[in-house]
Amino acid sequence: MNVTQGLRRVLQVNPLGLGTVDGDRRRTWHAVGDRVARLAGALQKLGIRRGDRVAVLMLNSDRYLELYLGIAWAGAVIVPTNIRWSHAEIEDSLRDCRAAMLVVDKAFAVMGEVLAKAVGLQLVYADDDAAPSGALHYDTLIEQTDPIPDAMADREDLTGIFYTGGTTGRSKGVMLSHANLVSNALHMLAEGLLPEGSVYLNAAPMFHLANGAGMFCSLIVGGTNVVIRSFTPEGVMNAIARNKVTVTLLVPTMIQMFVDHPGIADADMSSLKRIMYGASPISEALLNRAMTALPDTEFNQLYGMTELAPCATHLTWDQHVSEDAKRKNRQRACGRATVGCEVRIVDADHKPVPSGTVGEVAVRGQNVMMGYWERPEETAKAVIDGWMHTGDGGYMDEEGYVYLVDRVKDMIISGGENVYSMEVENVISQHPAVSQCAVIGVPSEQWGETVHAFVIPTPGAKVNGAEIIAFCKEKIAHYKCPRSVEIRSEPFPLSGAGKVLKRELRRQYAEAAAPAAAKAG
Amino acid sequence: MNVTQGLRRVLQVNPLGLGTVDGDRRRTWHAVGDRVARLAGALQKLGIRRGDRVAVLMLNSDRYLELYLGIAWAGAVIVPTNIRWSHAEIEDSLRDCRAAMLVVDKAFAVMGEVLAKAVGLQLVYADDDAAPSGALHYDTLIEQTDPIPDAMADREDLTGIFYTGGTTGRSKGVMLSHANLVSNALHMLAEGLLPEGSVYLNAAPMFHLANGAGMFCSLIVGGTNVVIRSFTPEGVMNAIARNKVTVTLLVPTMIQMFVDHPGIADADMSSLKRIMYGASPISEALLNRAMTALPDTEFNQLYGMTELAPCATHLTWDQHVSEDAKRKNRQRACGRATVGCEVRIVDADHKPVPSGTVGEVAVRGQNVMMGYWERPEETAKAVIDGWMHTGDGGYMDEEGYVYLVDRVKDMIISGGENVYSMEVENVISQHPAVSQCAVIGVPSEQWGETVHAFVIPTPGAKVNGAEIIAFCKEKIAHYKCPRSVEIRSEPFPLSGAGKVLKRELRRQYAEAAAPAAAKAG
Repeated sequence: MNVTQGLRRVLQVNPLGLGTVDGDRRRTWHAVGDRVARLAGALQKLGIRRGDRVAVLMLNSDRYLELYLGIAWAGAVIVPTNIRWSHAEIEDSLRDCRAAMLVVDKAFAVMGEVLAKAVGLQLVYADDDAAPSGALHYDTLIEQTDPIPDAMADREDLTGIFYTGGTTGRSKGVMLSHANLVSNALHMLAEGLLPEGSVYLNAAPMFHLANGAGMFCSLIVGGTNVVIRSFTPEGVMNAIARNKVTVTLLVPTMIQMFVDHPGIADADMSSLKRIMYGASPISEALLNRAMTALPDTEFNQLYGMTELAPCATHLTWDQHVSEDAKRKNRQRACGRATVGCEVRIVDADHKPVPSGTVGEVAVRGQNVMMGYWERPEETAKAVIDGWMHTGDGGYMDEEGYVYLVDRVKDMIISGGENVYSMEVENVISQHPAVSQCAVIGVPSEQWGETVHAFVIPTPGAKVNGAEIIAFCKEKIAHYKCPRSVEIRSEPFPLSGAGKVLKRELRRQYAEAAAPAAAKAG
Repeated sequence: MNVTQGLRRVLQVNPLGLGTVDGDRRRTWHAVGDRVARLAGALQKLGIRRGDRVAVLMLNSDRYLELYLGIAWAGAVIVPTNIRWSHAEIEDSLRDCRAAMLVVDKAFAVMGEVLAKAVGLQLVYADDDAAPSGALHYDTLIEQTDPIPDAMADREDLTGIFYTGGTTGRSKGVMLSHANLVSNALHMLAEGLLPEGSVYLNAAPMFHLANGAGMFCSLIVGGTNVVIRSFTPEGVMNAIARNKVTVTLLVPTMIQMFVDHPGIADADMSSLKRIMYGASPISEALLNRAMTALPDTEFNQLYGMTELAPCATHLTWDQHVSEDAKRKNRQRACGRATVGCEVRIVDADHKPVPSGTVGEVAVRGQNVMMGYWERPEETAKAVIDGWMHTGDGGYMDEEGYVYLVDRVKDMIISGGENVYSMEVENVISQHPAVSQCAVIGVPSEQWGETVHAFVIPTPGAKVNGAEIIAFCKEKIAHYKCPRSVEIRSEPFPLSGAGKVLKRELRRQYAEAAAPAAAKAG
């Protein structure tokens, strides 16, 4: 089974069903299938061979979905590129994977032209208007090429390279096979996340597998894919109301903007049965607001990473809201191993630790990546005996629920005690004047590290550092409480997946501290 | 992912959940897991090595489920043996696969003793009472052996040999890999057939993959498995009422006995959300009776064969009862390709035929068998370019629904016209006095073949051949109508899966005809 299997099947069982919706453009699966087979033909005519890399640098669109399918249909490899990266970072990744072609839309036409020249690759322009000079026009290629049969990639073949690592050091290309992506989709489908008749909204960036998780489920079962160009709360609301969307995936920052939007009270969100969320933790306060704003919608937490194609655990809706779940405060967990996955917590020697003990989360399943592109040593460090070592710190309770505490690298050691920034962040976010917060460890001569908090107040609210510290001291041990707090108005630096870039916050803190230190010195 | 993955996972996420229920014996997953790991240890101590074959000849029991898991946990290969076969047939299959061990229960203890001596294999007795001399006692082995770690079979490893072919010629061992069985389960789970919290009743014989389809789904998600020794309508009713069974799989003859049982009116069947049916076609008349008797139960038709591990198509409940389905008489279809499978109809050269044209049903997917045990030529004839050629004749409509017409070998050619016995059987079964019927082609000098019907009247009813023929002539073309009818009181010969053995009916017809022919000659 490869990633085009669902398309081949839906062309037989539901060819006239609605495949993609992008604004006013609605295409049946028959039309999507025809375009995909022509796109594959065009790629072949342009010299793209089995295994060649085709990079895509685009906002969301129905064409992005066609590219996922069409590049696979040609037997080639898609490289979905992070639209938030700098020119230099993108150029680096294109060179790293030796991409043969770059597909851009209007938003990235200029950058694409420069990149194509610099790296030396074919440029394809996939948007509604005419292509700039030097670029081939996507729709014209499709119109002028005959459909070709599916290259029928093997399930073990590479189907995509997803560059990751924005939050920690140098970017690496995660190699995912057809089997990786299909298996993850089947695991999620077995968990009932996209029942028959689902209409999926692609609202999170399509280059990222957080959205891809939902999209590939939808592609396997032949469900409808609604696409919005990029996330806005209004865009999500309109797309849901207009297309009777039943399920979407949002990262917590998106959920916050969506449910805090004043328009949601009047919008018809009754079709929306499920919001999957993940990619970064969600505060309990935000989740409660979200549940109030969307009383008919279930929330399902998924935890994973690109290397897991991407899911490892699932916290079902019942595990959010049942009496038992509430009593045990299960919202703090990221769930239990999904169907098809095994999860365990290991120590530094990769040996399992007893329940309740913090260690590194490790995951085994058919969804574990093939490896990092041309980085065998880093692959060998990450995947040991089939277990992906996630770099996430956490513990598991006796019922198999996983509680994340931090990136292993982000754990704070203060006065010899482990402090998990997530625990501190959960407390701070309960303060009524706090919209967002982030906690890092900062150097301290006396304690090794101390806890430093960044806080963005809710609009109109005022709060100071002393209040935050006092609030924390009421709720958690003193050594876990921030020693210093910075109140900010501008948003936090985010990765492509919406994760707060703590590396960047540390750099900012160090920069701000440096002159003072220099002065003091 | 291998077939023990679900057990490993449930031991973490739901160890105290109910794993198996067999009469009054209820075991948690923790207990099942412990017994499985000890059973594997015992097999190892007895010399069973990775890949060795362990045959099982038993009625249904919780121990049968443990054997499926425990033999896989030891890295060995289970050979579930058809309990309806003759001694000679079973001996043949044991020799064919060179089984090292045979596990029997009380019902097969005597036969097991003889077989073990004849073939020369270890005998294990898996029942409640003491083992007969010469046999090892299953429960004692488990009690006296320490648990061992899972042998962690590879997904491509052989996990079971399922002998098949009861309905057509010499028996062949269908080799199924872990991936085959797990993939089929994931396909069925993606179709929503066993949602979270399902309680599955093993009522059909556990040696057969028709029941195995449901059982493996349940094992992958860690659902409860209720077991009854063998099918009786009362047993099914009691097990459902007592254990709040939500889903089961029955073959049509079982559905008939269940829903026609007078006790069903008073039994509390409200927990039963779904009956999957398949293994042989169901008449429309019976399905309608079943729907009346169980108004809260959905019926899902599955079509497949052991070689497909076993499912290929699924007719959803909505596709039985929606207005559109009724208008198009969709109950006659066996459904559309399941998630993960592709189905097509091919001609004698294995080339796809247009929709509406009768040909052979071919299926592609991760669930297609590894091959027939030590029969490479027969494997090569059946699996061509990854497509399993089922030997079933049928056609596909423009919406992807598959309609079976006959085994390719069972098609009747009368006066140059193709007659599909299933079409004739569907008509005859609508006659109010008919309980069951079967149609074969019999030799005719004038027509090549003519249609011959066997009919079992409903209890108390009387019908003769002329009435059946007249009834058919009102509904279908004359060349399709029986020329001769035999009214019978005894049941039809059935295969292990409950399929009418037409080969045997043909033999009986020929035998009855022979003396007359001899006399005439």
